[in-house]
Amino acid sequence: MNFEEILPFAQRLVEESSRVILAHYLDPHLQVERKVDETPVTQADREAEARMRELIEKRFPDHGIVGEEYGSARADAEYIWLLDPIDGTKSFIAGVPLFGTLICLKRNGKPILGIIHQPVLGQLMVGDGSQTTLNGKPVRLRIPTGLAAATILTTDERDARNRFGSETWSRLTDQASLCRTWGDCYGYLLLASGKADVMIDPIVDSWDFHVMLPIIRGAGGIITDHRGNDPLKGDSVIASHPDLHQEIIRELIN
Amino acid sequence: MNFEEILPFAQRLVEESSRVILAHYLDPHLQVERKVDETPVTQADREAEARMRELIEKRFPDHGIVGEEYGSARADAEYIWLLDPIDGTKSFIAGVPLFGTLICLKRNGKPILGIIHQPVLGQLMVGDGSQTTLNGKPVRLRIPTGLAAATILTTDERDARNRFGSETWSRLTDQASLCRTWGDCYGYLLLASGKADVMIDPIVDSWDFHVMLPIIRGAGGIITDHRGNDPLKGDSVIASHPDLHQEIIRELIN
Repeated sequence: MNFEEILPFAQRLVEESSRVILAHYLDPHLQVERKVDETPVTQADREAEARMRELIEKRFPDHGIVGEEYGSARADAEYIWLLDPIDGTKSFIAGVPLFGTLICLKRNGKPILGIIHQPVLGQLMVGDGSQTTLNGKPVRLRIPTGLAAATILTTDERDARNRFGSETWSRLTDQASLCRTWGDCYGYLLLASGKADVMIDPIVDSWDFHVMLPIIRGAGGIITDHRGNDPLKGDSVIASHPDLHQEIIRELIN
Repeated sequence: MNFEEILPFAQRLVEESSRVILAHYLDPHLQVERKVDETPVTQADREAEARMRELIEKRFPDHGIVGEEYGSARADAEYIWLLDPIDGTKSFIAGVPLFGTLICLKRNGKPILGIIHQPVLGQLMVGDGSQTTLNGKPVRLRIPTGLAAATILTTDERDARNRFGSETWSRLTDQASLCRTWGDCYGYLLLASGKADVMIDPIVDSWDFHVMLPIIRGAGGIITDHRGNDPLKGDSVIASHPDLHQEIIRELIN
C-alpha cells in the first residue's frame, strides 16, 4: 500500500462521484430531503457515496468505509476510507460551486491522505501531511502580515456567533481585512492554496474535517480545535498559518 | 434603438471583458492596488472596462459611459452605459467565482437593461424590467414560504452589522433558514434565478446596483432601499419576492 497506488485510484473515485454530482447540479427538479439532524440531503449525495463505496469495496475489499450517508462497514479495519460525497450540500442546492467531495484515508485511526474535489471548477486538492497539491501543483499557505490584513473564512456566521458569542465574533472579524462564508471544504481549499488566512469551523463532524489534517499540514498550516488542542478530540476547527494561529485562538477564548 | 439591436452587442461586450478577466483569474502574480476609497483594483478591472468602453464608443459614439474605473464621458447623453468590469473584486482576487461583470443601459436616467456576467461559470443574466433570462432561459424569483425557510444573502455581514446594528442583524438572520455572504452581483443572480430569497446590500454605489433594477423586476421581485423607498434615491438595497419584502424591511428598521 503506497501513495503511487492510491492516487490514481483516488482520482478515479472523484471522476465517478463528479459524474454523478454534475448530473444533478442546477437541476430545477432536484429533490431535497431532511435528515434526522435536519441537515439537507439529495439524491446526488446518496448516489455519489454509493458509487465510491462500490469502487472501494471492489478494489480494497479489506478496507473499512465510513460515509456520511450510508454509515460504517468494517470500521475496525487497518485502513478506513472516510467519505463525504457532498460537503456543502446547502451550496450545492443553491447552485453555488463552493461545495466538494471529501475523501480521507485513515490508517489505524490517523488521517494519512486527504482529498477535496470541486467538480464544477475542476479543482482537485490532495494532501498527505507533508505535501499538498492543487491539480498536481504544490501549494502552500500564504505568509500572513497580521490580523488586520487577514481574510477570515467560516461556514456560517450564525454558528460562529452561537459558539463564540456575538461580541467575541464581532471583535475578531472587525479587526480583519475580510470575513466571508466561503466555507465548508472550499474554505480549506482557499486557505491551503494561499487565497485566505484563517478558516474557522465552529462545529464539525468527523467526515467534514479529518480529511483536512493532511491537507492543511501538508500546505504548512496548523489545524487545532478552537482551544488550540488536538482537533481529533474536539468538535471545532481553527486552521491557519502558524504565524497567526495563536492570535486567533486568544481572540476566540478571550 | 431596440433590444434586438442591443442584445447581441451586449453579448459581444461580455465576451470581450470575459477574455480579459479570465486571463488574470487565478494568476499567482496578480497585482492588487488600493483605490482612494481603499477598495482593491487590479489590471483585470481596468483592462476589461477599457475594452468595453472602446467597443461602446465605436458602436454608439453618441452614448455616454460611466465606469467604475475610468469615470464619465458624455454623462448628459440620452443613453448611458454604466459599467462595473468586476463587481466583487475581493472574490476575484481570492479565486472565488462569485464576482461578475455588470452592464447597465440607462435611458434618460432610468435603467432599461441590466446584465450580469459570471465568466468562470459562463452565466449570463439579462433583464429588461419585464423579463429576465439566465443563459437565454426565463427565470423568476421563487415563491417564499416565510422567513423561517428563507435564504438571506449579503455581501459582508460586518457592513450589515454596522448599518443595521448587531442585534437587529442577528435577530433577522437567526430567524432565517440560511444566511451566506454569497454576495456582490452573484447574490442578485441567485435571487433572480430562484436559488435564494433575499439579497441585502447595506451600502451600494450606482454602478453596483442600478443594473439590478431591470434584472430583479424582470424576474418578479421588488427592489428598494432598506427603508422601502426608491433605491435610486438611497444607498442600500433590499431585494426579494414581494411576499417577503415588507417583513424584511420591518425587521431592519425596527
